[in-house]
Amino acid sequence: MTVAEQIKSIASAARQASFAMAKLSSGAKNELLLDMAQALVENAPKIVEENRKDLEAGEKNGLSSAMLDRLMLNEARVKGMADAIREVAALPDPVGEVTGMWKRPNDLMVGKMRIPLGVIGIIYESRPNVTSDAAVLCLKSGNAVVLRGGSEAIHSNLAIATILQKVLANRNIPAAALSLIPFTEREGVTEMLKQEEYIDVIIPRGGEGLIRFVVQNSKIPVIKHYKGVCHIFVDASADFEMAKRIIVNAKVQRPGVCNALETLLIHRDVAERFVPMIAEALSAEKVELRGDETFRKYAPQAGVATEEDWYAEYLELILAARVVDDMDAAIEHINRYCSLHTESIITSDYGNAQRFIREVNSGVVMVNASTRFSDGNQLGLGAEIGISTTKLHSFGPMGLTDLTTTKFIVYGEGQVRA
Amino acid sequence: MTVAEQIKSIASAARQASFAMAKLSSGAKNELLLDMAQALVENAPKIVEENRKDLEAGEKNGLSSAMLDRLMLNEARVKGMADAIREVAALPDPVGEVTGMWKRPNDLMVGKMRIPLGVIGIIYESRPNVTSDAAVLCLKSGNAVVLRGGSEAIHSNLAIATILQKVLANRNIPAAALSLIPFTEREGVTEMLKQEEYIDVIIPRGGEGLIRFVVQNSKIPVIKHYKGVCHIFVDASADFEMAKRIIVNAKVQRPGVCNALETLLIHRDVAERFVPMIAEALSAEKVELRGDETFRKYAPQAGVATEEDWYAEYLELILAARVVDDMDAAIEHINRYCSLHTESIITSDYGNAQRFIREVNSGVVMVNASTRFSDGNQLGLGAEIGISTTKLHSFGPMGLTDLTTTKFIVYGEGQVRA
Repeated sequence: MTVAEQIKSIASAARQASFAMAKLSSGAKNELLLDMAQALVENAPKIVEENRKDLEAGEKNGLSSAMLDRLMLNEARVKGMADAIREVAALPDPVGEVTGMWKRPNDLMVGKMRIPLGVIGIIYESRPNVTSDAAVLCLKSGNAVVLRGGSEAIHSNLAIATILQKVLANRNIPAAALSLIPFTEREGVTEMLKQEEYIDVIIPRGGEGLIRFVVQNSKIPVIKHYKGVCHIFVDASADFEMAKRIIVNAKVQRPGVCNALETLLIHRDVAERFVPMIAEALSAEKVELRGDETFRKYAPQAGVATEEDWYAEYLELILAARVVDDMDAAIEHINRYCSLHTESIITSDYGNAQRFIREVNSGVVMVNASTRFSDGNQLGLGAEIGISTTKLHSFGPMGLTDLTTTKFIVYGEGQVRA
Repeated sequence: MTVAEQIKSIASAARQASFAMAKLSSGAKNELLLDMAQALVENAPKIVEENRKDLEAGEKNGLSSAMLDRLMLNEARVKGMADAIREVAALPDPVGEVTGMWKRPNDLMVGKMRIPLGVIGIIYESRPNVTSDAAVLCLKSGNAVVLRGGSEAIHSNLAIATILQKVLANRNIPAAALSLIPFTEREGVTEMLKQEEYIDVIIPRGGEGLIRFVVQNSKIPVIKHYKGVCHIFVDASADFEMAKRIIVNAKVQRPGVCNALETLLIHRDVAERFVPMIAEALSAEKVELRGDETFRKYAPQAGVATEEDWYAEYLELILAARVVDDMDAAIEHINRYCSLHTESIITSDYGNAQRFIREVNSGVVMVNASTRFSDGNQLGLGAEIGISTTKLHSFGPMGLTDLTTTKFIVYGEGQVRA
């Protein structure tokens, strides 16, 4: 069989297995996941051994030490993967939930019931823990999953997938409910993206390059997250101490992630008093500032922000800052430059808080809170399968429910249409 | 400007206008729609006059009388369009609904709020009433809309769109909130499908050919509905009179639509008694029967069903029929051949009813009811924008809510992440 034929056969088997997954009770799925956690712990030495092959190849190929660290598994990290599976097992099962039911004039009872999406394709990069993290979210929500990890982690991923498949087989569930594409060539991705007959949705997890490649080449719908250009707007009525605490947290606490602050907007009426204060606080944390003219007037240490800076997702200790005339100007700036990820207003004015919540249409819109809370766990969804910055199907951080859809259910007593 | 540049400019203006639409109150949107209904009635003679140009061109181009009838507008039909707008005005506004809210351990209040999708593209064929029907659903749900109708209705569509745009302008809403692509060449569609920066979703309304063309060429997510191969399964415990009434209704009442019955499955235990009865009833309604061997044994008037018949959406008075061993075989047949549209079981067995509801994962799953109820109006959604037979974003008949998404809203009091 060619690579294309083998991938088609994997996807088609996943579709068949998805019917079995969809029928499993919540109890059966939870037991399955707990067995998987146990199996990872028991087989940790085997996983670490296979991981060593990836690390050696990575060193030979000159991967950076940061990348090697992301790739590395030891027994403690495998135990962490098992714990993450147990947490997913403990989450409520979304499948079967009836989200509403109503009676029609002809006495038909009509409702909507949550069901699995079917087959979910996950395309990811170097972290091998995604193999189990993402897979168990798909299985818990009653889906089959087809995984395609990065070539640099192929030995680790195959080891993990094989262990998890054995657990499926032990419980008489088709092993094809969890498949890993074993081909490291790019063809492994492009052929997978053609299986629209068998795979219902693709969720890419990785850098912008990977995501753009997937979007360009996929015949299957993609839930995507390009980047996080998060804004904080300091309103004229803001509590300065609160604003300072939130801004420093949002920018500095973990600058390399998508919910970190990238652009700060400040109301003109408070610029003279607030800009020097926040500039000093951020400079003390070694944040490089790039401001518009008014911002620089009150913060001479700031460099010049160009048009490009308003679009920038720095992912490091750099912050773009702009003084805006009013709330309208702030919302207009956000509408133009934001990536629909997360925006927050710092205000003590009730009307402005409500207006910001209503009129800013990013995936997460906050009042008086750090953008760093924009994450499935922090918002209370449990483990996160990804973040969507496009509005179709899911918007914002995605949990188990986002791996389901709803069907209409109709209970009749012989009704026919007139 | 080239056609491509003009379409880009229309789409970009629609994106700008979508911010204004998203902010409108429910009251303002309802008044807008009522004004639009009024304007159509007042301008009916103008619309009918423009429609005559399309009819003349259609006759010259040899359109069938059925197609000419679909294209034709008279004052009564324009009044019908206005009435349909008033019905949409009377529906509840989904925008702003908070679908849930919860408190986190750090006292953050987290909720989900319904918001418009943004810009919706509608690509449709000959019926000019879609211009107003689809447009007002998009506007009521706070979206901007870009319409691209069939070339054969271009004069009618332009007349309707111009009248509706004047109402927008009269109420100081950007007219770009409702645009009609004025180009009848295919380029008008292909260029529209490239505007992924400005258009959030494409909903095609028309035949399978149009929908496949849109799916193949779109960079924008498409909500699609290929076909309706609807099944009814007559369980061993079915009430025969009820089964007969429902089957005849589902097949005969309006055979040319997607929720009409196409394949009948009958439990082996009742085949000998039920097949002759239903075959006679259907033959009396001039339905051509195509059965498997067992079905034909009890209904000699039936022709031979081939593999192709199990996939067929006849849209006319033809029915494929098969005798199956049991419920498992019925569900297996449905899983293999159905188009994920609508399936119904006729049964008096509680367990089988519940199992069918649970295990058949089409957009609409029914017990003891005619498949003909699978329609937004009949299910209680109000006017329908389309039917989705794929699971992402929407599944089954789509109403106003399906033209929205949810964002997370977070009310804080200065929380930062540790």
